[in-house]
Amino acid sequence: MTNQINRVAIVGGTHGNELIGAYLIQKFQRSPALIQRPSFETIALLGNPKAFEAKRRYIDKDLNRCFTHAVLHQPSALLYEEKRASVINQKLGPKGNAQVDFIIDLHSTSANMGLTAIPVNNHSFNLNLLAYLSVIEPDLKIYSWIEPGQESSFLNSICDRGFAIEVGPITPGILDATLFQSTERLIHAILDYLHGLNQGNTLHYPASLLIYRHLSTVDFPKRDTGELNGMIHRDRQEQDYQELRPGDPLFTTFDGEAIVYTGSSSVYPVFINEAAYYEKGIAMCLTQKETIDITSLHP
Amino acid sequence: MTNQINRVAIVGGTHGNELIGAYLIQKFQRSPALIQRPSFETIALLGNPKAFEAKRRYIDKDLNRCFTHAVLHQPSALLYEEKRASVINQKLGPKGNAQVDFIIDLHSTSANMGLTAIPVNNHSFNLNLLAYLSVIEPDLKIYSWIEPGQESSFLNSICDRGFAIEVGPITPGILDATLFQSTERLIHAILDYLHGLNQGNTLHYPASLLIYRHLSTVDFPKRDTGELNGMIHRDRQEQDYQELRPGDPLFTTFDGEAIVYTGSSSVYPVFINEAAYYEKGIAMCLTQKETIDITSLHP
Repeated sequence: MTNQINRVAIVGGTHGNELIGAYLIQKFQRSPALIQRPSFETIALLGNPKAFEAKRRYIDKDLNRCFTHAVLHQPSALLYEEKRASVINQKLGPKGNAQVDFIIDLHSTSANMGLTAIPVNNHSFNLNLLAYLSVIEPDLKIYSWIEPGQESSFLNSICDRGFAIEVGPITPGILDATLFQSTERLIHAILDYLHGLNQGNTLHYPASLLIYRHLSTVDFPKRDTGELNGMIHRDRQEQDYQELRPGDPLFTTFDGEAIVYTGSSSVYPVFINEAAYYEKGIAMCLTQKETIDITSLHP
Repeated sequence: MTNQINRVAIVGGTHGNELIGAYLIQKFQRSPALIQRPSFETIALLGNPKAFEAKRRYIDKDLNRCFTHAVLHQPSALLYEEKRASVINQKLGPKGNAQVDFIIDLHSTSANMGLTAIPVNNHSFNLNLLAYLSVIEPDLKIYSWIEPGQESSFLNSICDRGFAIEVGPITPGILDATLFQSTERLIHAILDYLHGLNQGNTLHYPASLLIYRHLSTVDFPKRDTGELNGMIHRDRQEQDYQELRPGDPLFTTFDGEAIVYTGSSSVYPVFINEAAYYEKGIAMCLTQKETIDITSLHP
């Protein structure tokens, strides 16, 4: 595989109520020159137009969980997002043999995740790029959300180069100027990097990269009936990427009782109190910190 | 009108995705003793059960805009929330001659409004109570959202004593332990006050009360097509109740241009970037600060 990039896709509004991505796509569609670079072509695509119009995350089903081979190749998809996933797979894919060489998928979260990149895999191409970006954007966090032995259902999985950008905290259905502008700045840094690579420019990388590797998810405390019985503890709210030690409070029941973390070692939670994950039974995702030596990976 | 309070209603989940109110109501329904006081009865009512189940603000129409005489007395309401408004009006009202003497309606907002009370009117009973509460809760803000010459369509308008509690910032569809507990604490302070008043206790009031009086609403910048063309300026985001001076930046267009406030005098915006108000064409509400001398109003 050559490092040459010929086509890049930027997708936003994959979740219809994540407005930063959707309005950035509209901006890029109005002014395509903004995202073109001399050595490649860039496509801007609104992921879920019907959900964007309805200002909802999705119509029938979470689009960003539809990109498995099983869903993409079923003979007659019935749900809107399953049909939409096939359309996107035709435009950008097919998954595994994609027409585009790089995908940026724009998201936002009600969790306090700042500016986060979620790479589609930890191949050296992606890690080098993220290491490069982490110098330009020192607050950029890398969340390696890969579940071993499980096929990725994310839109990014169409192509093995690229990542999702998650910015937060922001309420679904609203805009935030700071996060809009930092997402846009990051997109330009990515496009400039890819063009620099195409040109054979000398690019400067740090020696290592800090990543947060996905371990597991934690559900909310619930009653036998399945109803919620508590909420994120106030000490944990907005503390994404902060250390959670055994014995630290995790939840508060509605009666005011604290529930502590009973794991055997420290972890680093992310997606704490993400609005869209209540229905998935996820109160937060736990990660571990890892420093990757990338000097041997440089292109 | 006597000051005696015989029945109090606490309503939550009037907007189905404002979970703090809805889960407080469920808590009070499981443990009714929490909200009883020896001198009066308290009812806890889930405002919009269908929207709560769907985790949406409403099914067909904003329930908290349905409590006008015209809507309540139409012969055959078709929309779910119009029917629900009639049911609530039968349980607590009828509007203008209510069975309950006091209504607390629990809300939350994505705006940074802290702990806010929105009284149904500025009658002395409500102002005295709010003045009393503002000593117990020094961060409590009073937003007098009354549009002169216009009938109130809020649930609170069933009864001329009471107010809505707005807490924020919180994303719709999630819980927040700090705001849950401060809402609960305020409810208990209200119930204790009403019981104290019934008992003829000597209650201590401050001499004056600061209120933010509603002036007008401001829409987002839009294109000729009606589409959004910008967002709240970063200097204004989360700055509810802070002074906005002529010439201060108000919005940023998607192209990064600032739009300033062109009014002739300072105002104090609230409900800045409230998610549910995008569809109403409200980017923020403008208020003016007023200090009310309430020594002459004490009961």
